[in-house]
Amino acid sequence: MKKANKKVNAALIIIGNEILSGRTQDINVMNLSKWLNELGVKVEEIRIVPDNEIAIVHTVNFLRKRFNYIFTTGGIGPTHDDITSKSIAKAFKLKYGVHKEAYKLLENYYGSKNFNTGRKKMAMMPTKASLILNPSSGAPGFILDNVYCLPGVPSILKSMLGGLKNIIKGGKKILSKTINVQTVESEIAKPLEIVQLKFKKLDIGSYPFFRLGKIGVSIVIRSTDKKKIDDCYKEIVSFLKNKKINIIDKK
Amino acid sequence: MKKANKKVNAALIIIGNEILSGRTQDINVMNLSKWLNELGVKVEEIRIVPDNEIAIVHTVNFLRKRFNYIFTTGGIGPTHDDITSKSIAKAFKLKYGVHKEAYKLLENYYGSKNFNTGRKKMAMMPTKASLILNPSSGAPGFILDNVYCLPGVPSILKSMLGGLKNIIKGGKKILSKTINVQTVESEIAKPLEIVQLKFKKLDIGSYPFFRLGKIGVSIVIRSTDKKKIDDCYKEIVSFLKNKKINIIDKK
Repeated sequence: MKKANKKVNAALIIIGNEILSGRTQDINVMNLSKWLNELGVKVEEIRIVPDNEIAIVHTVNFLRKRFNYIFTTGGIGPTHDDITSKSIAKAFKLKYGVHKEAYKLLENYYGSKNFNTGRKKMAMMPTKASLILNPSSGAPGFILDNVYCLPGVPSILKSMLGGLKNIIKGGKKILSKTINVQTVESEIAKPLEIVQLKFKKLDIGSYPFFRLGKIGVSIVIRSTDKKKIDDCYKEIVSFLKNKKINIIDKK
Repeated sequence: MKKANKKVNAALIIIGNEILSGRTQDINVMNLSKWLNELGVKVEEIRIVPDNEIAIVHTVNFLRKRFNYIFTTGGIGPTHDDITSKSIAKAFKLKYGVHKEAYKLLENYYGSKNFNTGRKKMAMMPTKASLILNPSSGAPGFILDNVYCLPGVPSILKSMLGGLKNIIKGGKKILSKTINVQTVESEIAKPLEIVQLKFKKLDIGSYPFFRLGKIGVSIVIRSTDKKKIDDCYKEIVSFLKNKKINIIDKK
């Protein structure tokens, strides 16, 4: 049963030295945030932390009490630097060991002949966890309370979201409307502020862009209230027309 | 004078609703982390927070006491949702107002005729701040103590780093060596763990990749000690040869 009127939020914890060092460009934040938005869950904080037990334990324990949902990415693979599962067990003060269901699932996936030590490690997690099935490469993620642990490889992560869709209980869906205009931010700053003051509960963002050599600004209105977005949108379009600012497109 | 042997770290604070909502793909993390690495500064934590004064003040004050350097990105433009400068002033309990030098600089850049209210807002910041010059679009960033405030537009941010190069005092440069192999992680997990236990102070990472339809793993060794990296590298190459694992390339 969805709590349609409640505000539901989430924090993401991106675990991995490779993101912090700049070696790897993260794209899980964007994928997860968009997906959660669709379910009516607003991502309100993201932390990127190293493959370090103390950092993971502290971050998980701090955030899980403050947000409805926590999603972690990375560190659940077979190698020595994959320490998320063990750290999460520690954060919850729960037993870390062979998860029977995960073990069976992985043994079945690889065949008992190819089920080596590295692969067996992927069955090690908080023994009480619920599994998140992985349709693309076998190794499951897991859920403990409001903490959802997913892998770091974006394509695998994405393939696992389908199975979570009915588990996440979102609030009202966050809607948005975008107006792309051919101007610079300083030209619209004042009238946009006036509109924002009038529509205090709406989230109005202004983002400059450079596209095909042209300078422009995306004005984005976000809210769960469609009627208010439409009203706000009209006011913005009206001042843009007054100022003879060219609207490139709207969506 | 560079403190060549000290460990120097940094945290990044990415400010912006557009990143949290998944609307915009952040690339400043990667650019800043790589650039800081080159200067011998290790990024150890990253937080992405909304355009919200309380969140910014809290995050800045928590992190600035724990890391040598803090870099913020975003929220220093002319519109109502650009609240970084004001929030930083609040975090430091300093006066927020017209920064004389910034005002002159911006007036000069735009010409007094085009220096409108929106543009004037970009001269508003903690009045005591030092400026970070902006060669690509005029509006400066600023420095307060160990906190460096940069814009969110990646191309502009990048253009401002040149002027900071001699201000940041890094430690020993973090070096790395990568071996790309044609295998799956579970095949190398055990021997790689043994090497990691032998070279406890090195940071050995294992990252699966899918490239041109081929599955592989990047093994990355990171440290400030070139000799240790070389020794570790030899041991890894040796076990790869023993296990007849194909090395695609090394760098």
